[in-house]
Amino acid sequence: MKKFSEMKIGEDVVFNALVENLQKRFTPNKKAYYSLGLTDGETIIDARVWDELLVDNNDVKPGCVYSFEAHINEYAGKMQYVIRHILPVDETVDVSSFFRSAPLSGEFLKNSIKEYIQKIDNEILKKIVIELIANVKDLYFEYPAAMSMHHNYQYGLIHHTFSMLRIADTCIDLYPNINKSLLYAGVLIHDVGKTKELSGVHSPVYTQEGNLLGHIVIGLQMLAVASEKLGVEESEEVKMLQHMIASHHGELEWGSPKEPAILEAYALHYIDLMDSKLAALNPEVGKATKGANTGPIGSINRKTLYVPKL
Amino acid sequence: MKKFSEMKIGEDVVFNALVENLQKRFTPNKKAYYSLGLTDGETIIDARVWDELLVDNNDVKPGCVYSFEAHINEYAGKMQYVIRHILPVDETVDVSSFFRSAPLSGEFLKNSIKEYIQKIDNEILKKIVIELIANVKDLYFEYPAAMSMHHNYQYGLIHHTFSMLRIADTCIDLYPNINKSLLYAGVLIHDVGKTKELSGVHSPVYTQEGNLLGHIVIGLQMLAVASEKLGVEESEEVKMLQHMIASHHGELEWGSPKEPAILEAYALHYIDLMDSKLAALNPEVGKATKGANTGPIGSINRKTLYVPKL
Amino acid sequence: MKKFSEMKIGEDVVFNALVENLQKRFTPNKKAYYSLGLTDGETIIDARVWDELLVDNNDVKPGCVYSFEAHINEYAGKMQYVIRHILPVDETVDVSSFFRSAPLSGEFLKNSIKEYIQKIDNEILKKIVIELIANVKDLYFEYPAAMSMHHNYQYGLIHHTFSMLRIADTCIDLYPNINKSLLYAGVLIHDVGKTKELSGVHSPVYTQEGNLLGHIVIGLQMLAVASEKLGVEESEEVKMLQHMIASHHGELEWGSPKEPAILEAYALHYIDLMDSKLAALNPEVGKATKGANTGPIGSINRKTLYVPKL
Amino acid sequence: MKKFSEMKIGEDVVFNALVENLQKRFTPNKKAYYSLGLTDGETIIDARVWDELLVDNNDVKPGCVYSFEAHINEYAGKMQYVIRHILPVDETVDVSSFFRSAPLSGEFLKNSIKEYIQKIDNEILKKIVIELIANVKDLYFEYPAAMSMHHNYQYGLIHHTFSMLRIADTCIDLYPNINKSLLYAGVLIHDVGKTKELSGVHSPVYTQEGNLLGHIVIGLQMLAVASEKLGVEESEEVKMLQHMIASHHGELEWGSPKEPAILEAYALHYIDLMDSKLAALNPEVGKATKGANTGPIGSINRKTLYVPKL
Amino acid sequence: MKKFSEMKIGEDVVFNALVENLQKRFTPNKKAYYSLGLTDGETIIDARVWDELLVDNNDVKPGCVYSFEAHINEYAGKMQYVIRHILPVDETVDVSSFFRSAPLSGEFLKNSIKEYIQKIDNEILKKIVIELIANVKDLYFEYPAAMSMHHNYQYGLIHHTFSMLRIADTCIDLYPNINKSLLYAGVLIHDVGKTKELSGVHSPVYTQEGNLLGHIVIGLQMLAVASEKLGVEESEEVKMLQHMIASHHGELEWGSPKEPAILEAYALHYIDLMDSKLAALNPEVGKATKGANTGPIGSINRKTLYVPKL
Amino acid sequence: MKKFSEMKIGEDVVFNALVENLQKRFTPNKKAYYSLGLTDGETIIDARVWDELLVDNNDVKPGCVYSFEAHINEYAGKMQYVIRHILPVDETVDVSSFFRSAPLSGEFLKNSIKEYIQKIDNEILKKIVIELIANVKDLYFEYPAAMSMHHNYQYGLIHHTFSMLRIADTCIDLYPNINKSLLYAGVLIHDVGKTKELSGVHSPVYTQEGNLLGHIVIGLQMLAVASEKLGVEESEEVKMLQHMIASHHGELEWGSPKEPAILEAYALHYIDLMDSKLAALNPEVGKATKGANTGPIGSINRKTLYVPKL
Repeated sequence: MKKFSEMKIGEDVVFNALVENLQKRFTPNKKAYYSLGLTDGETIIDARVWDELLVDNNDVKPGCVYSFEAHINEYAGKMQYVIRHILPVDETVDVSSFFRSAPLSGEFLKNSIKEYIQKIDNEILKKIVIELIANVKDLYFEYPAAMSMHHNYQYGLIHHTFSMLRIADTCIDLYPNINKSLLYAGVLIHDVGKTKELSGVHSPVYTQEGNLLGHIVIGLQMLAVASEKLGVEESEEVKMLQHMIASHHGELEWGSPKEPAILEAYALHYIDLMDSKLAALNPEVGKATKGANTGPIGSINRKTLYVPKL
Repeated sequence: MKKFSEMKIGEDVVFNALVENLQKRFTPNKKAYYSLGLTDGETIIDARVWDELLVDNNDVKPGCVYSFEAHINEYAGKMQYVIRHILPVDETVDVSSFFRSAPLSGEFLKNSIKEYIQKIDNEILKKIVIELIANVKDLYFEYPAAMSMHHNYQYGLIHHTFSMLRIADTCIDLYPNINKSLLYAGVLIHDVGKTKELSGVHSPVYTQEGNLLGHIVIGLQMLAVASEKLGVEESEEVKMLQHMIASHHGELEWGSPKEPAILEAYALHYIDLMDSKLAALNPEVGKATKGANTGPIGSINRKTLYVPKL
Repeated sequence: MKKFSEMKIGEDVVFNALVENLQKRFTPNKKAYYSLGLTDGETIIDARVWDELLVDNNDVKPGCVYSFEAHINEYAGKMQYVIRHILPVDETVDVSSFFRSAPLSGEFLKNSIKEYIQKIDNEILKKIVIELIANVKDLYFEYPAAMSMHHNYQYGLIHHTFSMLRIADTCIDLYPNINKSLLYAGVLIHDVGKTKELSGVHSPVYTQEGNLLGHIVIGLQMLAVASEKLGVEESEEVKMLQHMIASHHGELEWGSPKEPAILEAYALHYIDLMDSKLAALNPEVGKATKGANTGPIGSINRKTLYVPKL
Repeated sequence: MKKFSEMKIGEDVVFNALVENLQKRFTPNKKAYYSLGLTDGETIIDARVWDELLVDNNDVKPGCVYSFEAHINEYAGKMQYVIRHILPVDETVDVSSFFRSAPLSGEFLKNSIKEYIQKIDNEILKKIVIELIANVKDLYFEYPAAMSMHHNYQYGLIHHTFSMLRIADTCIDLYPNINKSLLYAGVLIHDVGKTKELSGVHSPVYTQEGNLLGHIVIGLQMLAVASEKLGVEESEEVKMLQHMIASHHGELEWGSPKEPAILEAYALHYIDLMDSKLAALNPEVGKATKGANTGPIGSINRKTLYVPKL
Repeated sequence: MKKFSEMKIGEDVVFNALVENLQKRFTPNKKAYYSLGLTDGETIIDARVWDELLVDNNDVKPGCVYSFEAHINEYAGKMQYVIRHILPVDETVDVSSFFRSAPLSGEFLKNSIKEYIQKIDNEILKKIVIELIANVKDLYFEYPAAMSMHHNYQYGLIHHTFSMLRIADTCIDLYPNINKSLLYAGVLIHDVGKTKELSGVHSPVYTQEGNLLGHIVIGLQMLAVASEKLGVEESEEVKMLQHMIASHHGELEWGSPKEPAILEAYALHYIDLMDSKLAALNPEVGKATKGANTGPIGSINRKTLYVPKL
Repeated sequence: MKKFSEMKIGEDVVFNALVENLQKRFTPNKKAYYSLGLTDGETIIDARVWDELLVDNNDVKPGCVYSFEAHINEYAGKMQYVIRHILPVDETVDVSSFFRSAPLSGEFLKNSIKEYIQKIDNEILKKIVIELIANVKDLYFEYPAAMSMHHNYQYGLIHHTFSMLRIADTCIDLYPNINKSLLYAGVLIHDVGKTKELSGVHSPVYTQEGNLLGHIVIGLQMLAVASEKLGVEESEEVKMLQHMIASHHGELEWGSPKEPAILEAYALHYIDLMDSKLAALNPEVGKATKGANTGPIGSINRKTLYVPKL
C-alpha cells in the first residue's frame, strides 16, 4: 500500500490510516464537516470530510485505524485529502504499525539505556536512577519526549536520552573535569517528569499536572520522594541531581528556576539544547528536496530551512 | 546610651554594638586595617579600625557585642566611624537586645500566624501547613525573610507572612471567587523553603542548597515529602499548593518555573509583590527627613525615594 | 425570561437583548450577513444573522434593545446564536436594565467615594480632588474604567476606585509612613483622564484624544488646569499628585513617563496593579466550572485559568 | 594665557579657571583633600588639591573664577592637575568668558529662532509658541539642553532647537505631506519643559520637579495652562502639539507615554534623535587625533569613536 | 481611463491593469477561485475571480497587463474588486506605464546621483563607488530599495539614496567634523547589496542569496572583491566603508554585525533610519483624508497614522 | 623551580616569569607604582612593584622573561605578589616555555586538522578550506581563539577547531541528513577571521580591523576574495559557507547578521556554543577544590561554579 510520502496532488487514493485527531467544524453557511489528522506511521496529513455522515455512521474515533478513499486537492499550495469513503479495516491489520516511532528500535534504545546505567560508578547515583525509572517503569521506556517540538513519537524519551548520552561521551572525553557518573545520571533522569506531564504514548496532550507544574517541577518532586525513600536525601549526589534537573533549561526565561552553577549542569544544558534542536530539524531536511525549502518547522518558530544542493 | 541615629559627624562617641560583619583589608601601601559593620539593634553603620591590633588583641568576632570608642568622620558625604578603642562589654549586657528584629513582637506574630492556620477550613490544607511548619519548627517562627532586600531581620519571615495574610483578607473580601483556605495555606507556606535557603536568623548568607536550588525548589521538595508522608500526595489540594509555590514569583524571568494559572496563585503573587516592596520602602522613608531623599535602597536597584513635605 | 447563562447548545430560544456591536460581513461567495454582539446585562454573546434583511428591515442599531428568536449552534466548540427573527421590543421594556454594570450599586459606590473624600485631612488635596471630579461631574460616577481589560461596565471607574481605596486602607495600616491623605487623593484621581479617553458609558471606544494622548497625559493636563484655577499650582501637594498620576503604571514600558519616586506613588502602583488584575480574573472564575478551565481572558493575554475542585 | 587643550603632562602651569564643581574627599589614611572640576570655557579638566588649606583659606566656591598654579601628573593614562597655589583673580577678569557656550553666538541663535517663529503660518500655533516662550522668557534663550548628554552649555537649548529646524527644512522639502507650521511649532516647544527640569544655565542639576516629572510632563502642563489662557484648549492645534510633546522620545521605554501617531510626530522624533546624537559626537571627534580614538562618550554609553585617517 | 483612487464601492468599472501577483485558492466547499493583486501604476488593489476559467482561458500571468471588467463590493469594510471579464489589452498599450515608480523621474535621480559622486574629493573613495556601481550597472539605477517596507518601486534605490544625500548635506553643514567624502561614499553604496538581495525591478521577492546572507553581507563581499581588484584592499578608505556598510542598521538586533564606531557611521545610520521611515509614511498620509486615519502601514507594524485637520 | 600554583600566602619566593602586561599607576598620594600580570606558562598572577625604580632600571617590558623575588601578601582575600627584586634571566632560559598553550600539543592539533581536511569529499569545499588556511598560513595554526573568553592561548584556534570537529563527528552520526563535508568545512573556517581580528599569538589585543568589523565580517571578506581567486564565487558551496560564517553566532543580538537557515549552520552554531562554553569552564573546575567554588569566570559574566564533592 502506498505511503503518504508517495502520493501526489490530483490523485485518487485508497489507504489505511490511524486517526490522530478529529474535529467537527462548520462552514460560514453552517454546514458541518470534519477535519482529520491521519498518519500512516511515518507522516501526518490533513484531511477533510465534507459529508458528516461518513464520520458519524462509522463512529470514527481518534486512536483507531480505518480504510479511506480520497481525492487529493491542492489548497493554499499544500495537499488536502478530501475523504470520499470510510470503511472499517480488515481485522488482520496490525494497529500498532500505524504508531509513529523513533527511527531506532525500542528494544535497542532500552538496552542501550540500561548499559549506560551500568556505567555509573557512583552507587548512590546509580541507585537513584534505577529507583526513579522503576517508579514510572514502562512509561519511561515508551513515552515521547514532547507533544510536538522534538522526539514526539513512541520511544521519543529514550531516543532523546540515548542521543544525549552519546554526545555526553564526547564531552566527557573533551572536558575531563566533568564527573562522568553525575553527567550520565543527570542525562538519564532530566526529563523523567515528562512521564507525568504528558497524557500518554500516542497523541499526548498536557495533563493538568503538566499544565500547572511542568516536567521540571514534577521531576524535582519525584526525585525528592525517591531520595527520601532510599534514605539519601541529604547526600551531595541528590543535591547535585536536583540542581541539574532544576537548571537544565539553562535560563530563567526558558523555565529553569535556577541557572546552571556546576560544570555538569552546563554540560547537560548544552547537550539537551543541541539534541532537542538538531533532532527536530534533521527529519524535516530528510523529507525535503535539495535546492528547495522545508515546510515551516515548529521548533524554530515555524521558519523553514533551505536544503543545499550538495 | 546614645543610638546611632542620634550621633553626628565630628563627634567623639562611646557605645556598645554587635559586630554584624568584619573584613581585613589593605591600603595601597600594604598597611592592614579592618572594616566593620556594627549595629545597635536598629541601624547598621560602617566603621574603620586603622590600628589592626585593636581587633587582633581583642579577638573581635562577628555575632559578639563590644564596647567601642570612636570619632565620626565625613567620607564621601557619609558618616564614617573611626574606631579608637575596643573593650569587652560588661557581662550584664543583654546580647539579644542588639539583634535587629521585626517592628511587631515575635510573640504577637507567632500567635497571629497560628490563628490564621485555625481559619483554614479545608482539613487537608490545614494538615499540610501544620506538618510543614512542624518540620522546620522554630526556624519558621524566627527566620528573616531575606538576606537584604526586605524583612531582613529576626521574625522577618512571619512578619512578611502576617502582613500578606492581612492583605489576603482584603482580597478575599473584594474578590469573592478566591478560595479562602487555599489562599491562606499558600501565603503561609510560600516561603517555607527560606528556612533552608538562608544560613540562620542573624546575619544570614545563602546556604549551598540556597545557591544551587533556591527557596522555590526547596519548598516544592519539602511539600512533596510532607504530602507523601501524610498520604495526600495525589490530592487536588497538594497540586494547587505546589502550583502556588512554583508560580509565586509571577514570571519565568523572576525565577518561577511556571506562571500563575489559578486565581489564588495570581492573588498570592500580587500580595507577595506588594508586601515585599512596600515593607522594604516604608522604614527607609521613616528614617529620612521630609523634603529630602532617602539613601539608596537595595530593593529598588539602589534608587532613592523623595519624602514629600506633607 | 431566560438569561444567556441558562441557555444551551441545540435550543431554540426567544429573548430580549441590547445590541452592543454590529458588523456587516461577507462569505467567500459574496453573500452578506451580520455579526452581532448581544447582552442581557450580564453576559455578552456572539450572534449571526444570515438573512441580511432581518437587520436592514428593522433598522437594527447598537445601543438599542430588540426581541430575538434564535437557534443555538455549536461552532468550533462554542455556542453560536443563529438569529431567525428580530422584532421591536414592547415599549414597557426598561432599556437601562440591559446595561452591564458593577456588582455593587452605583449609589453605594458614589456614597463610599464621597466618604473617602471627606477623610482627606489635607485641605489642598481635598480641594483638588473635589474640583477635578466636579469638572467632569457625572462622568466620573458613571464611567467604566476601561474598554475591555477590567471594570468595563457602568460604574466601573468608581468600582475600581472604591476597591483600591479599600486596599489602600490595609496598606496605610501596614506601612505607617504612607501619607494617608496623599494616597487617598492619588487613588481618587489617578484615572480621572479616562473620562476623556473613552467615548461614553456604554460600549465605549477610544476618543481621538484617547488615542493620541492617553489617560495619563489627559489627567496631567486636567490637574494642571485645575491647580492653576485654584491657585495652588506651585504647592507640594500638586507636584506630588502630578508625579503619582504620571508614574502609576509603574514602568516606562507600560506607558508611565516616570517611575514611582515617592512611597505613595509605589503604593498607588501596586494597588492599581492588584485590583486591575484580580478584579478582571474574579468574575471569569465565577462563570466557570470547578475542575475545568475558564475561557481565554483578555487581561492575561488570552490565557485561561484552571478552577480548583475545592 | 594657555588653554587647557594646549597643556601637556609634566608641565608646570599657571591659569585662570572657573570652578564647575568641588568635592571634599579623604584618603584611606583619613587625610582630607579636594577634587575640583575646572573649565577655561572650552574644556573641563580634573584637578586635585592635596593641601586642604589652599581651598579653605581662599573660600573657593563653584561658579567663581580663580588663578591656579599646578603641576600636570599622569594618572591612569590621563592628565591630572595637582594644584599648588590658588589666588583670587584680578578684578578685570571677565567671569562670563569662562562659561562654556554654544559654538554659534546666542544673538545669532535667538534671531534665527525668532525668524522661524514668523514662518509659522497657522495663527493658533504661532500664538501658542510665542506665549510658551514668553512665559519662561530668557530661560528659553539661555538654557542648556541637557545636564551632560548633549548641548550641555549656555544657549544649548536654542542651539539644539535651531539645528533641528534646519533638519526640519530638509524633511519638509523631501516629505511634502508634513505640515510645515505644525513641525516648526513642535520643534520650537518640544523641550520647553527643560527650563523647569534643570536648575540653571551654568552647571545645572535636576530640580525636584525635574526628578519627579521630567521635561515631557512639565512641557505638557505648561502647554495645557497656556492653551487655557489663550482660550484654544479644545483646538486641533493644541491636541496635535500635546501629542508631539508626549511622543517625541519615540518609544515608551525611552519615557514617552505615547508613541508617535501623526506624521509630524514621527518627523520630530527622528530629527530630535539625529541632532541629540550627532551634536554630542561631533565635538568629541573634533578634539581627538586622526587615527586614534576619542575618550569615552557619555551619550553612547561611554563607548569611544575611532577617528579615520582621512 | 479612471484610476483606482477614483473608483468607489458599488460601481461597475472597466480598466487596464498590471497583474502584480496571482494565487489560486479554494473555498471551504472546494471550489477554486483566484486572488489577484492589480496595479494601475499608482495604487495596488485586491481582486477576486470567482470563475476560474476567466483566468485559465486567458493564460493570465503576473507582470502582464490585461483589460478587466469588475464590480466593486464591500468586504470587511474595504473595497473588493470582483472580476467579471478579462480580455487581452490593445497592442498599443504601453506596459511600462503600469509600473509603479519613484515620485521623481529616473533621469533626474540618476543625474543627481552622478553629480554627488563627482563631489567626492577622495580619489580612492570615488574610484570604489564608481567601480561598485559599474559592477551592477543598470540594476543600481533601476532597483527598488525594498520589497515592501519603503521605496518599493522602480528607481526606489536611487530615490532613497538621493534623499539620504540631501539629508547628509544638512548634517555635513551642522556637524563639521563629518568627513564629507566618506559620508557621501557610504550613503551611495550602503544598500548596493540590494541588487542581489532582491530578484528584480518589478514585484521583487528575496533571492536565495538574499534569504541566506542579506544585503549587508552581500554588500560587504562586493566591496571586498572590488577593493581587491582596484588594489586598495588595505586602505583606510576601504576599512571605513566596510565598517559603514556593516553597521548601518545601527544595532546588532537589527541585523548589523557591528554597532557604529566612527562619526560617519553614526550619521549614515540616523540618515538611513529617518529616510526609510518618513519616506514610507509620507505617501500614506497623502492618500488619506484630513481628520481621519490612514490604513495600516507595514513599516510601523501595521499601525495607522492620524492626519491632522490643519 | 616552584610553579605559581604551588606558592602560598606569606611565603617569600624566587621565580622566573613572563610579563604578560604592565601598567604604571599612582596612589592617592601621587606615588608611582607598577601593576604587573606575570605568567609561568600555566597560571597568570597579579603583582605590585611599589618601588618604581625596580621596573625603570631594568627596562622591564611585556613579552619578556625576568627573575623575580617577591613576598606574597593577602589582599581582599586573594594572593598579591609584592615584588622586591627584578633581575635579567640567565641566557639559557627558554622564553617560549613561558607561553601558555593548549593542553594538546600544537603538532598533534595541526596534524589532526589536516586529516579532517582530507576527509572533505567535496572538491570545491576542500579547495576553499585549503586556500583560506594557506592565505593566513602559520597564523591559523598558532593563534589563540579569543582574547580572554575561551581558548585564549597559543594553538587555541586549532584546539577549538579540533574539539568542534570531534563533536561534529557525533552529530553527523546522530543526525544523518547533515552534509559531512559542508559541516567539516564550516567548522574549519568559521573563525578564520580571528587571525586578523586579534593582534598576535601572545597577549593579543583587538586590531583596529577587529574593533570596526569583527571576525565574522573579516571572515566573509576573506572567503569572498578567495572564492573569486579560485573562480568558484557563484557555486552553491561558497554560498553555503558564507551563510555558515555569517550565522554561526546564532542570533542577531550575538552579532550574526543572519540566523541559521540550513541544517549545517544550526549544527555549527550549537557545536561552537558548546565548545566555547565548556572548554572555558573545564580548566576553572580543574583548578578549584572539591566542595568549594571556582573564582569568577569571565565567559559566564564573572559568576563562579561550585565543584561537587564527588
